[in-house]
Amino acid sequence: MRIKVIVPLLTSKYNSAIQEELTPYVAPDVSVTVVNLASGSPSIESRYDEIYSTPEIVSKIVKSEEEGYDGVFVSCVSDPAISVARELVDIPIVGGFEPAALSAGMISKCWGIITITQSCARLIRDLATLAGIHQQLACIRSMNQPIDELHQVPGKLEEVLLAQIKKMVSEDRVTAIVLGCTGMMGMAKYLSKEMEAIGTPIQVIDPSAVALGYLQMMIRAGLTHSRLEYPKLNLRERVISCIK
Amino acid sequence: MRIKVIVPLLTSKYNSAIQEELTPYVAPDVSVTVVNLASGSPSIESRYDEIYSTPEIVSKIVKSEEEGYDGVFVSCVSDPAISVARELVDIPIVGGFEPAALSAGMISKCWGIITITQSCARLIRDLATLAGIHQQLACIRSMNQPIDELHQVPGKLEEVLLAQIKKMVSEDRVTAIVLGCTGMMGMAKYLSKEMEAIGTPIQVIDPSAVALGYLQMMIRAGLTHSRLEYPKLNLRERVISCIK
Amino acid sequence: MRIKVIVPLLTSKYNSAIQEELTPYVAPDVSVTVVNLASGSPSIESRYDEIYSTPEIVSKIVKSEEEGYDGVFVSCVSDPAISVARELVDIPIVGGFEPAALSAGMISKCWGIITITQSCARLIRDLATLAGIHQQLACIRSMNQPIDELHQVPGKLEEVLLAQIKKMVSEDRVTAIVLGCTGMMGMAKYLSKEMEAIGTPIQVIDPSAVALGYLQMMIRAGLTHSRLEYPKLNLRERVISCIK
Amino acid sequence: MRIKVIVPLLTSKYNSAIQEELTPYVAPDVSVTVVNLASGSPSIESRYDEIYSTPEIVSKIVKSEEEGYDGVFVSCVSDPAISVARELVDIPIVGGFEPAALSAGMISKCWGIITITQSCARLIRDLATLAGIHQQLACIRSMNQPIDELHQVPGKLEEVLLAQIKKMVSEDRVTAIVLGCTGMMGMAKYLSKEMEAIGTPIQVIDPSAVALGYLQMMIRAGLTHSRLEYPKLNLRERVISCIK
Amino acid sequence: MRIKVIVPLLTSKYNSAIQEELTPYVAPDVSVTVVNLASGSPSIESRYDEIYSTPEIVSKIVKSEEEGYDGVFVSCVSDPAISVARELVDIPIVGGFEPAALSAGMISKCWGIITITQSCARLIRDLATLAGIHQQLACIRSMNQPIDELHQVPGKLEEVLLAQIKKMVSEDRVTAIVLGCTGMMGMAKYLSKEMEAIGTPIQVIDPSAVALGYLQMMIRAGLTHSRLEYPKLNLRERVISCIK
Amino acid sequence: MRIKVIVPLLTSKYNSAIQEELTPYVAPDVSVTVVNLASGSPSIESRYDEIYSTPEIVSKIVKSEEEGYDGVFVSCVSDPAISVARELVDIPIVGGFEPAALSAGMISKCWGIITITQSCARLIRDLATLAGIHQQLACIRSMNQPIDELHQVPGKLEEVLLAQIKKMVSEDRVTAIVLGCTGMMGMAKYLSKEMEAIGTPIQVIDPSAVALGYLQMMIRAGLTHSRLEYPKLNLRERVISCIK
Repeated sequence: MRIKVIVPLLTSKYNSAIQEELTPYVAPDVSVTVVNLASGSPSIESRYDEIYSTPEIVSKIVKSEEEGYDGVFVSCVSDPAISVARELVDIPIVGGFEPAALSAGMISKCWGIITITQSCARLIRDLATLAGIHQQLACIRSMNQPIDELHQVPGKLEEVLLAQIKKMVSEDRVTAIVLGCTGMMGMAKYLSKEMEAIGTPIQVIDPSAVALGYLQMMIRAGLTHSRLEYPKLNLRERVISCIK
Repeated sequence: MRIKVIVPLLTSKYNSAIQEELTPYVAPDVSVTVVNLASGSPSIESRYDEIYSTPEIVSKIVKSEEEGYDGVFVSCVSDPAISVARELVDIPIVGGFEPAALSAGMISKCWGIITITQSCARLIRDLATLAGIHQQLACIRSMNQPIDELHQVPGKLEEVLLAQIKKMVSEDRVTAIVLGCTGMMGMAKYLSKEMEAIGTPIQVIDPSAVALGYLQMMIRAGLTHSRLEYPKLNLRERVISCIK
Repeated sequence: MRIKVIVPLLTSKYNSAIQEELTPYVAPDVSVTVVNLASGSPSIESRYDEIYSTPEIVSKIVKSEEEGYDGVFVSCVSDPAISVARELVDIPIVGGFEPAALSAGMISKCWGIITITQSCARLIRDLATLAGIHQQLACIRSMNQPIDELHQVPGKLEEVLLAQIKKMVSEDRVTAIVLGCTGMMGMAKYLSKEMEAIGTPIQVIDPSAVALGYLQMMIRAGLTHSRLEYPKLNLRERVISCIK
Repeated sequence: MRIKVIVPLLTSKYNSAIQEELTPYVAPDVSVTVVNLASGSPSIESRYDEIYSTPEIVSKIVKSEEEGYDGVFVSCVSDPAISVARELVDIPIVGGFEPAALSAGMISKCWGIITITQSCARLIRDLATLAGIHQQLACIRSMNQPIDELHQVPGKLEEVLLAQIKKMVSEDRVTAIVLGCTGMMGMAKYLSKEMEAIGTPIQVIDPSAVALGYLQMMIRAGLTHSRLEYPKLNLRERVISCIK
Repeated sequence: MRIKVIVPLLTSKYNSAIQEELTPYVAPDVSVTVVNLASGSPSIESRYDEIYSTPEIVSKIVKSEEEGYDGVFVSCVSDPAISVARELVDIPIVGGFEPAALSAGMISKCWGIITITQSCARLIRDLATLAGIHQQLACIRSMNQPIDELHQVPGKLEEVLLAQIKKMVSEDRVTAIVLGCTGMMGMAKYLSKEMEAIGTPIQVIDPSAVALGYLQMMIRAGLTHSRLEYPKLNLRERVISCIK
Repeated sequence: MRIKVIVPLLTSKYNSAIQEELTPYVAPDVSVTVVNLASGSPSIESRYDEIYSTPEIVSKIVKSEEEGYDGVFVSCVSDPAISVARELVDIPIVGGFEPAALSAGMISKCWGIITITQSCARLIRDLATLAGIHQQLACIRSMNQPIDELHQVPGKLEEVLLAQIKKMVSEDRVTAIVLGCTGMMGMAKYLSKEMEAIGTPIQVIDPSAVALGYLQMMIRAGLTHSRLEYPKLNLRERVISCIK
């Protein structure tokens, strides 16, 4: 089984770290290939970014199907390009939000998510509304600090996330947490352990781990998106005109 | 007051007819300028089309603000580019769906919408879910025939729409109808009259009429989208990379 | 276009101020006539008040239609007499709540409303439930002070409203505000400006401005309430008996 | 324990039949007094009727409290005057809809109601929405024939109701029925028996039986409406002006 | 009329006190028989407890029907065995939660419930979800102290409950309270009085009082659960195998 | 990774067929052990059956954890014993309903489920309500024939299921199907193929395939149920009394 992971960043410098990070989440018969984007927004933190990064993600998904990949994970919690690509290809495609949200719903009936910025928070609220699970999503909290900055000071990201989770447990009464950015890799285990240590054993869901699990499940079960939901597009009839 | 109407078609041939059609829906102190697109999809009937037409609609909205327009109506019931553009400009922007849906909710607690294709129906269902009014939206029915074809045979569009409305009243028990495509211009009055003639007086909502009314209301009331919902994007920080 | 504004107070002393205040919200081809009541409750702040003021509002609406008015705005956020009158007349009628609530939903997915008393708050919660938009209405806060008193001390109403809005933003996380009384005229612009000055740019919706905009939209679009929702009453069959 | 039953009809001719009909539904220590109205609408079948019958119902409720009654049942499924009177008196008051709807919810998660006219159906839909139980209310069907007419032909009302119930079971998949008019007295038992005889054992709820049971429960449990929901009105401050 | 009350405790020591406590809540023609369990959990505070106490409750309900009882009240707010027994018997059966919750909905549109432990709180949240009334249930608060301990110190239970209710009124804005354990007998009147004394007149609902009222109502109205919801089980076909 | 599959039947005769059927759905590093029950109901088709089969399922889950299994799948679409066992063990446990329902939600926003009997249909509706996804579950249809009988005539089960799916697509407009019984093994692929052949390409979800995929995902991601949702039970404090 071969899975393509598309990272919507304009740099390849994280690709091998991501590949290494994701390996424990796939079965021995699964190979994972990580690619990044060459065009689009530097990262997806707004509806504007989403629009401008979508075309290349879509074409990379189409190419993955042509190359015989069994499924694609777009490594971003705003699920960019997912619904567009489902009109074009038959293989299953997942983003970071929907699998994490649906799994959270099985673990907890009152959970929260931590995002980077207020703008991401709005994107995620809309995704939750579309997924039909917004009533279980008790709160969306933003760190309001760029994740790059947080990564630069050792221990800073851990500290900020832990503080947010404590607040969500006491103020919003959540019983599980979804990490709202695939750039928070490696944090889930640390945070669960810390919360357990203070007597508040909460599940912390890493979106990449769950997305890859979901994708493997769909591939082994022979499932994909419904053609009655996403009628297949005849691209010959939808020629896109370009200026210049 | 100056309003820009953006028609997401790749032809200018309908612009003057649209301008004429829309004039009764604006006050004497309002001027309407209709423009079409030069790039993108031939029309918006899928998520794919939406992605590829959005960039030019966004740039036309940004330009409208720079030129001093007071508001923009994107003449399409899938509300393309609306949420993206709200991150960039301060003037109010409306598409065809949201004003029609909210007005339908005041006229009826159980209404339906008629779209062109099954693919449009999915787009509209998602918009209704996001708008939070999907419980009042009793049904979305598709004509499953290209609107161009229907326009070619005189009386054909009228006939197909009337048949659908009768079904929606008897089978889905709707008490109002939204026309789910801005290309159904001129139909609302005809259909209301026909339905009244057979003793089933139903309101038929033309999305363009309502969208323009909404926009005028927002402009006169000094309202626009909330910056707390759509944080303003700093475009200098979001340089989009392009592949040649 | 002629619009009748019915102010459900037992005094005519505010009529000309209201007329002046409303003028900027109508197009140049629209004339507005403001009338008050001669019987009923001194103002509408409870279900009891609503019942006793409704008969005269209803008869004034019936008379407005006979006189050729194109639409009626009942200037009160508890929407009194609206649903009753829709059984009797064909012209569009709006109150202060429904247009403001539906417009708030387009501006924000999490908004709040400020009312005069706790009793008004209950009326408004019921209206929100009936309108189907109570999930977006994050909070209803009462000032718990008669608006007359607040008007007497210069700057007092401004101060109380501003304090409430600040609380709603921080505690209830709202992204837009509806002023829950048509007697808060002139406040919306002041409050928006003050909130923007402190870096929290929030839209403040004046119910009268929005109601008039809605009404003009309905009139220009040829829309009114649905007869399938509000079957027309044959008054000859519904003779009301009165005790002397 | 003394219960007042207010029948919102302008005739006393049914009072003793109603009294007899209701007796089996009260305990031996409960006395029931039936009164009708002297003014208002001939019966309540529209929002208009409701407004014009409410004042006398309210004053009869106030008087019942003064006379020492322990509770009041307003015998009408549109629950007229209930919420108004709760602002004025402390004794529990019920109409025909809310107790029947809440009891239906315990018997079935998918039930239906049969009303007289389409206009009543709208009133009931709004009551269901306000009660928060509209998702379990699978359908509201109207007989579209005046109940007086149906009563005149022996067996006619039975026949029409039975036909509706059969349709609701097969088409709307309901598992319980509420009779949507207190004038359908005596029908519940007959209809249950007939449905059981054809192998479809469905509960048919008589609104009067349930309302009286609810009221006795509230009186014995010492419960009434919440003053935090219905702030008590100071009538001296709410003098209603009347035009001569 | 004869009602059986099943107390799911493994001791008979509270039976006569419960009988005495419940007497004011039944009519003069109603006799109440209180029984406890001989096997199962010491009390029901978790899903595990519920499973192990259910078989004996079920067999006691079956026996009650055989003995000619008119209805059964299982005196526990987690409604144990109710839905199972409805598949077996025809007489009406109620637990402590559903009648209290539905009555709370008539008294208030925003109410709260106080339970013993966090584990009970989860059971109750699930019951509220199944009953379809979770949107009106503003909060579930736990005392987090065994009720036995609270009963031992005179005045302690009163104190803890009063403190919780004050918090629920101010923080969760509830307008009515349900006592979430039938072991809180005698508290409702005390708490209502205390709350009224401090100017916050709130209804406090005793689940036993309301459950008995509901049951009497169902018996007098000839109602029971719907066979279309709870198809009758043929026990001969469902022989349970047991391991020795 | 070792997974225990508990089949709640009183016979071991299907165990090896189930094991063989499930193998394609697990990764090469996963071993599956299938066990059946020795006591309880012959199969789970009612709330009564569920109660009597739960104790042995619970004890088999507890034993699985002691034996070092990484997770348990209870092979039944009524999810028996799941919530009870989560109070006792730390390893992840899934039934057949919840994973299938959540996956259906990602594939379709309007799906249906086919069950054996009407009684199963009620169990599943309640599970859907608790899972919070009942709004996407457009219909629950029962075959109303024992699955054993259907299995006996070759091709009969296929025929009945196909007929139901065609009805669900045309009448209920579903875009995906969940097979509502783990005894419908092997049907999903056949049904998808047949539906595609007639031009209606619908995803048919096999609950076992999806449950195993979910379980592997949870194990690899290090996730389990939340202790804040399912507080751990101290069994020493919850001694169950038994009557000899």
